[in-house]
Amino acid sequence: MKVAKFGGSSVANAEQLQKVANIIQDDKDRKVIVVSAPGKRFSDDVKVTDLLIALGEAYFKKQPYEEELQTVLNRFQEITSELKISDQIIHDIKDGVQGILASNDSDALKMDALKATGEDSLAKVLSAYLQSLGLEATYLNPQEAGIIVSDTPGSAQILEESYEYIYKLRDRNEIVVIPGFFGYSTSGKLITFSRGGSDITGSIVAAGVKAELYENFTDVDSVYCVNPTIVENPKEITSLTYKEMRELSYAGFSVFHDEALIPAFKADIPVCIKNTNNPRGMGTIIVSKKEPQPNPVVGIASDTGFISIYVSKYLMNRELGFGRKLLTILEDEDISFEHTPSGIDDISVIIRESVLTKEKEERIIARIKEELDPDTVSVERDLALIMVVGEGMDSTLGLADKATHAFNKAQVNIEMMNQGSSEVSMMFGIKADKVNESVKALYETFFE
Amino acid sequence: MKVAKFGGSSVANAEQLQKVANIIQDDKDRKVIVVSAPGKRFSDDVKVTDLLIALGEAYFKKQPYEEELQTVLNRFQEITSELKISDQIIHDIKDGVQGILASNDSDALKMDALKATGEDSLAKVLSAYLQSLGLEATYLNPQEAGIIVSDTPGSAQILEESYEYIYKLRDRNEIVVIPGFFGYSTSGKLITFSRGGSDITGSIVAAGVKAELYENFTDVDSVYCVNPTIVENPKEITSLTYKEMRELSYAGFSVFHDEALIPAFKADIPVCIKNTNNPRGMGTIIVSKKEPQPNPVVGIASDTGFISIYVSKYLMNRELGFGRKLLTILEDEDISFEHTPSGIDDISVIIRESVLTKEKEERIIARIKEELDPDTVSVERDLALIMVVGEGMDSTLGLADKATHAFNKAQVNIEMMNQGSSEVSMMFGIKADKVNESVKALYETFFE
Repeated sequence: MKVAKFGGSSVANAEQLQKVANIIQDDKDRKVIVVSAPGKRFSDDVKVTDLLIALGEAYFKKQPYEEELQTVLNRFQEITSELKISDQIIHDIKDGVQGILASNDSDALKMDALKATGEDSLAKVLSAYLQSLGLEATYLNPQEAGIIVSDTPGSAQILEESYEYIYKLRDRNEIVVIPGFFGYSTSGKLITFSRGGSDITGSIVAAGVKAELYENFTDVDSVYCVNPTIVENPKEITSLTYKEMRELSYAGFSVFHDEALIPAFKADIPVCIKNTNNPRGMGTIIVSKKEPQPNPVVGIASDTGFISIYVSKYLMNRELGFGRKLLTILEDEDISFEHTPSGIDDISVIIRESVLTKEKEERIIARIKEELDPDTVSVERDLALIMVVGEGMDSTLGLADKATHAFNKAQVNIEMMNQGSSEVSMMFGIKADKVNESVKALYETFFE
Repeated sequence: MKVAKFGGSSVANAEQLQKVANIIQDDKDRKVIVVSAPGKRFSDDVKVTDLLIALGEAYFKKQPYEEELQTVLNRFQEITSELKISDQIIHDIKDGVQGILASNDSDALKMDALKATGEDSLAKVLSAYLQSLGLEATYLNPQEAGIIVSDTPGSAQILEESYEYIYKLRDRNEIVVIPGFFGYSTSGKLITFSRGGSDITGSIVAAGVKAELYENFTDVDSVYCVNPTIVENPKEITSLTYKEMRELSYAGFSVFHDEALIPAFKADIPVCIKNTNNPRGMGTIIVSKKEPQPNPVVGIASDTGFISIYVSKYLMNRELGFGRKLLTILEDEDISFEHTPSGIDDISVIIRESVLTKEKEERIIARIKEELDPDTVSVERDLALIMVVGEGMDSTLGLADKATHAFNKAQVNIEMMNQGSSEVSMMFGIKADKVNESVKALYETFFE
């Protein structure tokens, strides 16, 4: 049994849904289908989910919301008429939205229910379309599917008991179409996952039914080993591990919603990323383990927008608790750090610039000065992190040599270097304006 | 005005003291002399300080201590007779020791007073000897010199007010000889610094009198750029900065007691390491700043006996407080850590093996498992750290490339790499059994 999840661009219009239907028909093991809400049809288009959020926000501000609602209805109208299926869904959405807005639920619950309307309606449409093609298919509400989540609107967490319910989907003979992005609390309220949550539903369902494969259909042929806006026509990654995927997605690879992979990861389900527009392509498969490779490097990721807070103090390493106190100051400001490279008498904390406001920065620096009595504190901005990723790197001789040589060839000074905890990556910190030449040089070194 | 400190081997016997007197006569600016207790005359010899400690321990256990006392007396007897000066000191030591043991002070204070007897007596002997040579010289007790310290036996901390008193030594015309290793509390009790404390006294006095130079006479010509037991006849370092010295001494260079340098460092006093047996040699000078160098690497240090605790958890970097909690667990066990290289979902803590008992390790691992719920925890042993040290390394292109290339040439896998916080060093972690080939390869790369 395979679980196939189709993302927003794969269900953006009737033409895409026809491709989806073909893909489903192509493989009898594709029995559980998870869908997103219709995404963009062209680059300036607005996603249905964004229309629904705008609708909700307008309503809460007591502003008119009819235009947003009508746009949503139009998008579904276009789909049903092109697919030549009943337009009952149009009435259902209209009634549904009115019902949500008129309910006694909290604003947060209303917003969650509104946001989920896109996925829910699309699942109904796809199931009706599959039926119209003569397939045995059923729309299945997440509550019936057994997706029970925490009562935390906008950031549902799956409850462990769900998996037992979901496993029962294996008993079904027909194709089931489940809307992604939401589940139900034990008290029966609709709660959404965080944004990008259809991937989470797919991963949960795949784990629940113990699928042989979780296929994630999107609009790229595969994951590239490097950002294709930096290197032209880079190599495709045919296979990578969960850990590798995670390290890559951390530093700029946005194929996946990180947390989405956790349920599949824990249940050891292989995940395949495929292109709805080219379903026969190899795609990229994500597995939990792989054989050692002669060149273990699978990808090079990079991301900008980091800053470093540098603290030095003579004999720091003798001072019990120094590092802990520094991290406590950050924690008190709700700042999570990325790395803490340290010398003997100094430590730097690498932080994403986006999490640090001017006020927080000032408070942090002031507290460091007051509580840690350092010799110096300074802040360095505009840093980029580059990750060279691959399992087995830790035991392959000469990789650090190759990587540092690439930076040197590109005439880029390495500001930071961090290897040794992760078995999966080497991290380099450089000035943000040197990212492109560095990534190119690393690509040449490891992939050409 | 120069402050000259003579270490244990420089004052081990009459012959060495004659060299010391020549050195003092050689430069009229050498006005303040700080001395250790007589050290070893040959490799199996026992230092006077160790004899005095043994004496104290025997006394506290109510065992006979006459042999230790007699050995101390014999050593001074030998010195005074060879130098042809009065042997009054022999009677003073005898009376002094009896007075200490008979006093109402605590055992800790008694021990401090006993331990200090070596330095105190030697300072008296040297001053008498200088007088016998026709020099104007005075023994000066640390209390008179103004060395006022915290009331913490065995680990005195200098009090800030001392520096004002010590500055008054500038008004003296004669040579003053001050015993190293101890000061007096505000209530007038003799309190010793931690072991190696004569260096501390020298550094404090140099800072106090605002010396133009603090000369530290020992038994090596200079600091080598690498451990001479690993590389034969390595280059000598003529000049290095405080920070460089500190990084080198961290990882195996034992020229200096780290904390000893702080007072001189803070007062910006240059420190010169010289050989009593070759006083005309250049020595090595330690300064606070130096000009940028084309090859900034000044030394390569290495040390074994490190272990790494590795913790991994999917999405660790999203978990606010994870790193802080890990460090708190270590702090609760009184463990100070050396480095914390981290990946995205993992962190390692590098610890000196010597600070970790089996019980502490078990408790730490158990708490990590219980409190942090990690995916994996493991301990790696027998690690060595190698530091490539030099100010200005952070802005010199290609150094990381050179260093990693050296490891690769030596066929050594780099387990850990940490650069970027310290502006003064790059740190590499390797298996302990690969230290020698690594250090040799790095030496060839940076110094040949």
